[in-house]
Order: sequence, then C-alpha cells, then structure tokens
Amino acid sequence: MNYWKKLQARQDANESLLCVGLDPVVERLPEGLNKLPGDIFAFTSAIIDATKDLVCAYKPNIAFYEAEGLEGLKALKQTIEYIPDDIPVILDCKRGDIGHSSAAYARGMFEFFEADAITVAPYLGYDSISPFAEYTDRGIYILALTSNQGVLDFQYQEIKNEGKQLYEIVSTKVEEWNKKFANFALVTGATHPDELKRVRAKAPSLPFLIPGIGAQGGELQKTLEHANTAAGIPPVIVVARSVIYASAGKDFAEMAREAAKGYRDTINQYR
Amino acid sequence: MNYWKKLQARQDANESLLCVGLDPVVERLPEGLNKLPGDIFAFTSAIIDATKDLVCAYKPNIAFYEAEGLEGLKALKQTIEYIPDDIPVILDCKRGDIGHSSAAYARGMFEFFEADAITVAPYLGYDSISPFAEYTDRGIYILALTSNQGVLDFQYQEIKNEGKQLYEIVSTKVEEWNKKFANFALVTGATHPDELKRVRAKAPSLPFLIPGIGAQGGELQKTLEHANTAAGIPPVIVVARSVIYASAGKDFAEMAREAAKGYRDTINQYR
Repeated sequence: MNYWKKLQARQDANESLLCVGLDPVVERLPEGLNKLPGDIFAFTSAIIDATKDLVCAYKPNIAFYEAEGLEGLKALKQTIEYIPDDIPVILDCKRGDIGHSSAAYARGMFEFFEADAITVAPYLGYDSISPFAEYTDRGIYILALTSNQGVLDFQYQEIKNEGKQLYEIVSTKVEEWNKKFANFALVTGATHPDELKRVRAKAPSLPFLIPGIGAQGGELQKTLEHANTAAGIPPVIVVARSVIYASAGKDFAEMAREAAKGYRDTINQYR
Repeated sequence: MNYWKKLQARQDANESLLCVGLDPVVERLPEGLNKLPGDIFAFTSAIIDATKDLVCAYKPNIAFYEAEGLEGLKALKQTIEYIPDDIPVILDCKRGDIGHSSAAYARGMFEFFEADAITVAPYLGYDSISPFAEYTDRGIYILALTSNQGVLDFQYQEIKNEGKQLYEIVSTKVEEWNKKFANFALVTGATHPDELKRVRAKAPSLPFLIPGIGAQGGELQKTLEHANTAAGIPPVIVVARSVIYASAGKDFAEMAREAAKGYRDTINQYR
C-alpha cells in the first residue's frame, strides 16, 4: 500500500501525528530485561504493544541496531515485522551515495527491511536520491534542516546570489524534483522553528518529518504553525527517548504509554 | 594499530596506492558461483586471495551487503575478518546523524565490523562527525567532493562572501577540526581533477581517498598531481568494478589480479 495513504489512514484512525522513535540502547534497557542485544526485541515489542493505538507511525533509527552488529540488525528485522501492518514504518537511515550504491541501499531498506519510508542525506545531490524515489509507493524524507547544533557548519551557509541558506536550497530543489516523483518529503527539526517556517515557504507541497520535540527541547507550538503543507497534509512529529525511556523500571511500557498519550494530546491541542 | 601507520606500512610494502573496492552484486557473481547472497563471501575471499600483495587497502561499500539483508551483512563481517591483519579495511558507509546516533553508528562500524577507517557524510556538521573521530586510532574520511554528477546540486553551490563553493567550505572546516583530532581525511573524486586541486589548497594536511578511476572514467594523471598532502602523505586510489568484474567467467580472480596489477603500475608511473 502507498505510504502516504497508509500514514494518513493511521493519522485519522488514531487521531495522532505522533511517531515513536524506536532507538534501543542496550545499556538503557529497563529493569526486568538483560542489558544485552538479545533483549532488544523484547523491549521494542513491549513499547509497540503499549503505544500502537496512540501513534501514526514508528521510526526505528537503524544506527542503534547497527551498534550491536548482526544481532542488533536481526532485532530490527523482528521489530519491523512485529509492527502491525496498518502502521507505517519510517526507517531512519540517512543513507545516500553515488547512484548504483544508493540503489543497493534502497534494495536493503525497502526490500529486505520492508520500510514504508526512509530518511536520505542530500549532500551527493539528485542522482544519489533518485534511486530511492524510484520505489514510488514508499516515502522519501530528505534531510533539509536537522535538529542538532551542527546545522551552523553547512546547512546555514548562505549561498551567493540566492539570498538563501543551504537548507533552503535543498528544500527548493526537492520541491522541484517532487514534480517528477511525488514521494518526496523533508526532515525539519523542531529545534529551529523560525527556519522551519522558511523551509515551508520554499517547499509548500512537501510533508514534514519533525524530530527534536522531547529530549532535544524543540518548540512544539511554534513548530506546528507552519507544519502542514499548503494542501493541508499534516506532519509526522517524532518523539523517541522521552517516550521509550520514560521509566527505567519494570513499569517502562506503561510509562511509555503515558508519555506517548501526553505527547499525542499536546500535539492535538496545537494542531 | 593506528590506521595511518598500518596504511603507510602497506603502501610501502606492496609499493601500491591501489585500494580495491569490494562491492559485490549478487546478479554479477561470476561463472562457477551461485548468484545468491550465500556466495558473496566465496567471491570476495577469492578476490582478496588474488590481489592482497597488490593493494594498500580494501574498501567494502556496506551498501552492497545491506542490499542482501542479514545474509549480506554476515558476508561483510566474514569478508573483513578474512582480510589479512596487516591490510587496512576502509568501510565505505557514508554515515552521519545527530551526536548520539552517530556514536551508535561508530560503535557498529568500529567495534562490530572492526573497520580501520570509514567514510562519513558532512551535511549535519561537526557534532555529527566528532563521535566517529573520538576513535582516535581509526581514519575518518569526510565526503568533500564526490565523483558523481550530483556534485552540481549542492557541493558546487557558491557560498556568499567566501568566494568558495560548499565542498571547499567542507574541506576548510575539516582541515581546521583536524587540529584537534588528527585522524580526519577527505574523499575527493578523480572525476573532477580541477576541483580536487582546490580541495588540496584548502586542506593541505589532509590525506585523500580518491574514487572515480576505472568504471567512472576519472583522470588519473591530472588527479595525482595534487593528491599528496603538503607533508607528502600519498592518497588511497580506489578501483572497484573495473577490478572485481574484470571477467564474468571462471577466471574472474586471475583477471581481477591482472587488472589490479595494471592499475597499481599505472598509478606508480604517475606518482
């Protein structure tokens, strides 16, 4: 099923824009579980059971599974399989390479891991991104404005004769490329709400994936003012650590549910 | 052992700047092997046996292993283990994410896969790169100027008031960051030799990893003119497809050896 339809159906059914980030760190696995790669799936599946009626999507970041090697990646495969079929999976992988290498990554992310959508890094340009977009039923979120301090180094560099910074050039180009593919979207961090507004101006038609709420301290209300597309397509708002590590005790799943409910409802207040 | 020492020892011992890219594509596995993920390691190990006295390093691109899921990634682990201890492994992974996610990637690449060096994408800036550099005995090759057409989209964007393009800003910043970490280096494609010269001007101390010779048609002679650092540290020159797919027949390993020998010797002519 087309990612965007699946996402919208779930946003409607669960009245939720919340996407829970499934980022397991072995050392942080809660009481009752072993702090070992073999217990990652026990953790992620418990979080899924506790939150599946509250979310519009799940976003595992593959970095946290790769950290544990083959055992971790096996847990990622199990986690994705465990997510109910009607909830889309955004696999956060920030891949991007020259064309034939990007095609290999696309095969891994979409065919083996069966992600509904992924995140892609833009530095290598169009021919590094189009191999992902050729999977036309999947969603491709390009990094425009990330949620970290490092945006200052390159993303905020002002481009000559354009009056735009690099992240705005990325936004402008992806908006243009989307006329062909129609499955592009952007990552724009909630930690920079004024710049998010500028991304929206450059890319009126592209849906947003918004990290940075929660542990990173992004401004939810200000962010949501410009988060919808011109056509009214709402964003996906990601919270990871503040939900999945809401408690380090045996009540971790229950507390994750409480935290997810809180975020969903707060987001809905400001929609 | 420190990556740079290991690399230099091998460059001297084998009189070679050639790095063979180990990028297996299941459909292209040669005669005598099954076109299945289970035969990837039979392929890569035969290539290693045939070329190990001719190279200064191997560069598996993880994209081609991820394409085959867990079985492919198991073959990557086996391939890295099979490479003789005195030949460094540059794991081409182009990772990069916000700090704690980059730290997770670093753990996967350096601790699980035991890479001596990796490639890293710069878009997210300093705090996305430093977690890799904290593994001080490993090499960190930052993408500056890639070998594909897509350089035009972002890397060639001219930055206001600087008189530099984005790839030059990346080069300048990495040169500066290297005062702290001393394990940074740059990826600069041989397909853009004039721009490679400009990278060298901005980053006189950083060693280069140079893809784009071979199937991509980069200009070897012109590239090698500016490839050494100011202190005379030579680059690593990558050839992948033109070596490993030199023959689709049962003589694939022998023909890979011939191709590798040809590249090594041609490179040495222009040093």
